[in-house]
Amino acid sequence: MPNPFFNNCGPLKYLDILKILNIKADDQTKDQEIIDIKDLFTAENNDISFFHSKKYFDIAKNTKASFCLTTKTLKDYLPSSCKPIIVENVLISTSHLTSMFYPDSVNDNFDDTVTDIANTKFKDKVKFGKNILVGNNVTIGSNCSIGHNSIIEKNVAIGDNCSIGSNTIIRNSLIKNNVKILDNCVIGKHGFGFFPKKNANLRYPHIGYVVIEDNCEIGCGSTIDRGSMSNTVIGKNTYLDNQIHIAHNVKIGENSIIAGQVGIAGSSILGKNIRIGGQAGISGHLRIGDNVEIAGGSGVIKNIPDNSKVMGYPAKNIREFLKNNKWYIKQPL
Amino acid sequence: MPNPFFNNCGPLKYLDILKILNIKADDQTKDQEIIDIKDLFTAENNDISFFHSKKYFDIAKNTKASFCLTTKTLKDYLPSSCKPIIVENVLISTSHLTSMFYPDSVNDNFDDTVTDIANTKFKDKVKFGKNILVGNNVTIGSNCSIGHNSIIEKNVAIGDNCSIGSNTIIRNSLIKNNVKILDNCVIGKHGFGFFPKKNANLRYPHIGYVVIEDNCEIGCGSTIDRGSMSNTVIGKNTYLDNQIHIAHNVKIGENSIIAGQVGIAGSSILGKNIRIGGQAGISGHLRIGDNVEIAGGSGVIKNIPDNSKVMGYPAKNIREFLKNNKWYIKQPL
Amino acid sequence: MPNPFFNNCGPLKYLDILKILNIKADDQTKDQEIIDIKDLFTAENNDISFFHSKKYFDIAKNTKASFCLTTKTLKDYLPSSCKPIIVENVLISTSHLTSMFYPDSVNDNFDDTVTDIANTKFKDKVKFGKNILVGNNVTIGSNCSIGHNSIIEKNVAIGDNCSIGSNTIIRNSLIKNNVKILDNCVIGKHGFGFFPKKNANLRYPHIGYVVIEDNCEIGCGSTIDRGSMSNTVIGKNTYLDNQIHIAHNVKIGENSIIAGQVGIAGSSILGKNIRIGGQAGISGHLRIGDNVEIAGGSGVIKNIPDNSKVMGYPAKNIREFLKNNKWYIKQPL
Repeated sequence: MPNPFFNNCGPLKYLDILKILNIKADDQTKDQEIIDIKDLFTAENNDISFFHSKKYFDIAKNTKASFCLTTKTLKDYLPSSCKPIIVENVLISTSHLTSMFYPDSVNDNFDDTVTDIANTKFKDKVKFGKNILVGNNVTIGSNCSIGHNSIIEKNVAIGDNCSIGSNTIIRNSLIKNNVKILDNCVIGKHGFGFFPKKNANLRYPHIGYVVIEDNCEIGCGSTIDRGSMSNTVIGKNTYLDNQIHIAHNVKIGENSIIAGQVGIAGSSILGKNIRIGGQAGISGHLRIGDNVEIAGGSGVIKNIPDNSKVMGYPAKNIREFLKNNKWYIKQPL
Repeated sequence: MPNPFFNNCGPLKYLDILKILNIKADDQTKDQEIIDIKDLFTAENNDISFFHSKKYFDIAKNTKASFCLTTKTLKDYLPSSCKPIIVENVLISTSHLTSMFYPDSVNDNFDDTVTDIANTKFKDKVKFGKNILVGNNVTIGSNCSIGHNSIIEKNVAIGDNCSIGSNTIIRNSLIKNNVKILDNCVIGKHGFGFFPKKNANLRYPHIGYVVIEDNCEIGCGSTIDRGSMSNTVIGKNTYLDNQIHIAHNVKIGENSIIAGQVGIAGSSILGKNIRIGGQAGISGHLRIGDNVEIAGGSGVIKNIPDNSKVMGYPAKNIREFLKNNKWYIKQPL
Repeated sequence: MPNPFFNNCGPLKYLDILKILNIKADDQTKDQEIIDIKDLFTAENNDISFFHSKKYFDIAKNTKASFCLTTKTLKDYLPSSCKPIIVENVLISTSHLTSMFYPDSVNDNFDDTVTDIANTKFKDKVKFGKNILVGNNVTIGSNCSIGHNSIIEKNVAIGDNCSIGSNTIIRNSLIKNNVKILDNCVIGKHGFGFFPKKNANLRYPHIGYVVIEDNCEIGCGSTIDRGSMSNTVIGKNTYLDNQIHIAHNVKIGENSIIAGQVGIAGSSILGKNIRIGGQAGISGHLRIGDNVEIAGGSGVIKNIPDNSKVMGYPAKNIREFLKNNKWYIKQPL
């Protein structure tokens, strides 16, 4: 699927890409067109991908990408159909190349394409409050309402029967049917992703988007960042309470319930039927199984298998936690 | 006291209620009018109440309600003046019936009754910024100010000498005198209350409101949800710092001080002269006594008696906590 | 340097100050003009300062202030060039006197000096969205953008190449070059500073401001409070993620990275090259050294020397923390 929200400036020529990356072409190099940049899993024939950590070797060996930015030591995991391009820093080169394919994904300044909803095609279709702004490339289904001072910035698709609160800002998001987003939320901003560099960090582009599936509810004052290469996904019928922060690339399964002030760090993947108590935190790049319960205030720093109940910091099996605190629980304070 | 903010569609007829709940009336049933639905404690003669957990048997046995939704096993705790109505799931039936009495308490979409304050009776009385909206059933006392882009939605009573910041949204709230609410707050939205149901959770109505007593201050970016059956209450001269989340039905006593990013889960009741350090969390349905101090970052998961100082997760007596961490505290890092 | 944002009503006469504080002048007292009130370190000749805790005796003995509010027991630490004024409660007297010098620093109600940016000198210079308000005493450099519904309240200086998001409110802040402040932030409000008093707490004035140095980024929904006597400072090229709370007088060094939902309590001073994981909290009045790493979810309650890695609550050396939790880390859940 082509990126629905960011304009792909590709195809780029292979030789031009080498030039951009400051790599000398060898004599036998034939020029070729490269259509898109994608992760190892979703890349297709004639796409370029990137492979920077052994962790992903399982995916790497099956990638359909025709080219891959990688290192000397990792290149041998790639299939013969994928030509490795050896670079010094895979992620920085990936970032650089992504900005070439998607130049408008880097800048997250305010959207200057917006107009008052009263002057758009939505004026008779959507129930709306005062001072609503709508940007380019926005679609809104039937029977939706949008509260006062909210801004539907560019690149947003909203389904049917959705209710958007007041003072809420949305961009680069795919919002399905029967979704409620309450007041003062910010959905679809770029994530906290950059390469630390003395004096001036280097931001990398975020070409993913936020997907909020059917029947979800997002509480007041929440922030959900869009993905960098993949998407941030809130599964069907999942409810988020107030002041929740969901970082880039996080995926949450369906029928989950997440209480107030929870934070989920980047790229963690949660199963379905999850319950998370208030103020709990989940570190980045973790896998949380189905039917997991995480007690309020817990700090999760490793993967959690299906059907577990955890508590504490570091979050451990809840029986273990309660045993360790038995003295406390039995005694009066 | 009748509900000041939601319109009661009662009285409903007893036989109609049985019909709504899909319960067959027995032959001797006489029809009767039921005025309102309330909790066991506040219900009066000719009201209907609900009783779903043994925890409340003390209140149940003294209820003045004439009818009560309950279970087979609990019904015997009710006084003879209160006719039990046996249902399969007390809370779902209560929710269903509450929506019958108060149909406009379920939907929390943006308030479409608002008009620009400059076109209201408040225009000469209140000091106000740009782009202020005011809804139906709003009263504002003397010497108040309201900042830019704020929305006083329907069902709000504001006392004298209050200062509301900018970008703040208030509904269903009773705000007394000399109260300051800073910028970007959301006060009076429904709480995180629903029955989890696969594919489409079932929200229950919130007919309570938020009460903020005299001389309180609420910091920037805070959210205070209104109560479901009872109210959410912030006691006199209690100060809340920024980014605090107070869930539905919470009650906080007077002269309390609550630092930034604290979260208090639903239905917990806190005494007066409380001190809570930053980022501490309190689980739901707890009782915290008077003069309690809770150290920053603590996680409180059980009741705390008067005059205690607690710390840690789970929060325990502060002397105990410090003893356990003595090694840490004496040693350099 | 005179205060750039608050108007100093001084000089005040020494005898008038005694009168304000209800102190009887002795016979030899000569009248003298006092120019400003400052902390012990920054006060100069003809300024008045305050000294309330032995902790500051090192600074006190070298102060250049000509007068100092203090106690009987502390007065002997002051140099002979500094005349002590003995008061019952140093901080309350300081607060009282500060409001005399800076009467407009106490009230933080919405700024009523603002006008639509389209009617200001910035209209051709700044790229701006809809419904932007700008107050008195604001400067904005070249090549800046300001998003929809944002309010640049009075007393703000913004440098070159800055990007302010939408729904953001800024006051009393000095924002240097290449700074990005994302959506829904509140920057420069007074801190959570007051003297607890039964029935009606006593707020003290905040005459400091917020300084955000070059190349910083502040995430969505963050709040940064201005300082009381000194400033709140975010060092060069420091990045803050979403929903972060920085309390009054905090100073953060350059090249630091702070993840989502972190909270830093009042007056703590952090070095440079700090890394703080999501949801970590730092208590007030601490010193955190350079190159310190604080794991997500940690609670820091004592000073941390340079180059340390800490984790847990209370945060301790990360090796110690992991050793204590070794069992947990090796075992499956």
